[in-house]
Amino acid sequence: MKQTNSDSLVLPTMRWEHDALVLLDQTKLPATIHWISCTDHERVAEAIRRLEVRGAPAIGAAAAFGMVLGAQLGVMLDAAKLDCHLRQVADDLMATRPTAINLAWAVQEMLKVVAITGCNDKEQLLAALEKRACAIYDLDVSVNAMLSAHGATLFTRPSVVLTHCNAGSLATVAHGTALGVIRAAWRQGNIVNVYADETRPLLQGARLTAFELSSEGIPVTLITDSMAGWVMRLGKVDAIIVGADRIARNGDTANKIGTYSLAVLAKEHGIPFYVAAPQSTLDRSLSDGKGIPIEERDGREILQFAGQWIAPPDVAVFNPAFDVTPANLITAIITEVGIFRPPFNF
Amino acid sequence: MKQTNSDSLVLPTMRWEHDALVLLDQTKLPATIHWISCTDHERVAEAIRRLEVRGAPAIGAAAAFGMVLGAQLGVMLDAAKLDCHLRQVADDLMATRPTAINLAWAVQEMLKVVAITGCNDKEQLLAALEKRACAIYDLDVSVNAMLSAHGATLFTRPSVVLTHCNAGSLATVAHGTALGVIRAAWRQGNIVNVYADETRPLLQGARLTAFELSSEGIPVTLITDSMAGWVMRLGKVDAIIVGADRIARNGDTANKIGTYSLAVLAKEHGIPFYVAAPQSTLDRSLSDGKGIPIEERDGREILQFAGQWIAPPDVAVFNPAFDVTPANLITAIITEVGIFRPPFNF
Repeated sequence: MKQTNSDSLVLPTMRWEHDALVLLDQTKLPATIHWISCTDHERVAEAIRRLEVRGAPAIGAAAAFGMVLGAQLGVMLDAAKLDCHLRQVADDLMATRPTAINLAWAVQEMLKVVAITGCNDKEQLLAALEKRACAIYDLDVSVNAMLSAHGATLFTRPSVVLTHCNAGSLATVAHGTALGVIRAAWRQGNIVNVYADETRPLLQGARLTAFELSSEGIPVTLITDSMAGWVMRLGKVDAIIVGADRIARNGDTANKIGTYSLAVLAKEHGIPFYVAAPQSTLDRSLSDGKGIPIEERDGREILQFAGQWIAPPDVAVFNPAFDVTPANLITAIITEVGIFRPPFNF
Repeated sequence: MKQTNSDSLVLPTMRWEHDALVLLDQTKLPATIHWISCTDHERVAEAIRRLEVRGAPAIGAAAAFGMVLGAQLGVMLDAAKLDCHLRQVADDLMATRPTAINLAWAVQEMLKVVAITGCNDKEQLLAALEKRACAIYDLDVSVNAMLSAHGATLFTRPSVVLTHCNAGSLATVAHGTALGVIRAAWRQGNIVNVYADETRPLLQGARLTAFELSSEGIPVTLITDSMAGWVMRLGKVDAIIVGADRIARNGDTANKIGTYSLAVLAKEHGIPFYVAAPQSTLDRSLSDGKGIPIEERDGREILQFAGQWIAPPDVAVFNPAFDVTPANLITAIITEVGIFRPPFNF
């Protein structure tokens, strides 16, 4: 496990310490840099639920380490009970957030290790689980680097791009997906400016994307989500690039709420709309996006800011965390194995 | 001057007290009900700049009373100096916000009174200015009532509508424009629910529209601006209705930033897109929307919330307060003299 972040100016999302997973608390960024030491899988699950760690690839890696912590705490159980305990740990971790498929993918990968290694030799099982979790972590680093290199080929001249939410280093183990592509293209001299949607309600664009990009000296202009269409109308945007939380076989893509509107606006303005995601984001069990579960979160995320009411407390709220962009609005999907164009057939 | 608000559950936007204009401080709603007593035109100008009073028709009426206060304070000047002083007061008031044309319209109406009455008989001038300001105030009440009645005819069965920003009682002297239509249609049993965009950065939808509608018992569901497209995609919206800050002769309409995106999304989903505005919002000097000046406001409106930084302080920001929706995306424009459909030719 490399434990390195090649984007050296960006804070690492997580650090594995053999008996603890140390997470950067993303809810407090950029004002405060605070680390959370998780010594059991419940704290990892809580961190995922609270969005202290967020971004589809990052929560996959965190959940894999959560499985290791669960195994470490269950090591005194007999083989049958340990097996049962690990299934419960897996269920607890997968129940935290329903939309991002990377989470379920990583936990299933860990359960495969349990099935293959068995629960009799506990030392061997713990070693195998830790090795697999570290491999998932390392894989995310290399996958994002490959994905970023492929994506950068789409930018052959100095361009202005617009992105939504944070599909950056902070959403992954390192590099990022959409921001990984932007970073790679910027290093090649092909990014002039990045418009970052602030991304209500939790402001991942303002708090994380603007922070990541400005830390590295990549030019970024912050806008509210409602301004993206007008910025396109003014002719200021050459391409849109976003990450993904789950992609169906036909290319329908779940991503942070607001992505769908951007895709419609991109079509209206003839602007290419790119999705950047590792193959672990593909859900091959779904033929199209209709089956993707959309997480609805607490209305207080919209009604309150920093504990202060910004709307009448008793007003009804609809707070879906994601939406689904139909494949026909997507120009290309960038993965670690190359760039796919419609019709998609994963 | 009626000084009544027929929407009895809604707070009045302003109250004229002959030597002071008392404004409801809309920046503090809904948490705090605070009144600002303006005894000179500078304080009225400041209130308009700070958005303590906002909404195109409301700032028009406030500016008219600002002209009266300016005249009262200039009453010791000789006729020539008073005339000059009143032109300066007019310029100061018109310079506060460039986009809404109602402001300039109301101030010009007051200057016409000065031109007709002259500055020699100051008692007569003061009386004439106060009378005209009260007439502008009263006109807004009656105009909105007529506009609302016309607009309600567009809703012939129970419907779900979506609105942006606040074009309500709080944006006008009473009733509101877009919310006036919604109120009138609701009283006829034809409004099932209203989706209110929170309207970043200043949250007029969350703070004012949700407050106004829920105060009256009109069902309202608050969403972030980025959710509007997804709500349309889910088939939850039958119509969109917004106010306007300036309308060119061909129907191109400036309104709160985010309106343009909604109009594109409405077209994509085959949803009618209505603009509700009094005729004082028409700018007959402009053949189309290209000449409408778009106010850009301080980036701290996006970078900070309640004095707290929510993004890196040094990040670049683009903060246009308005956008222009081209006439071809507008299904109808609702005014006090009736409903206009494209091609518009005001």
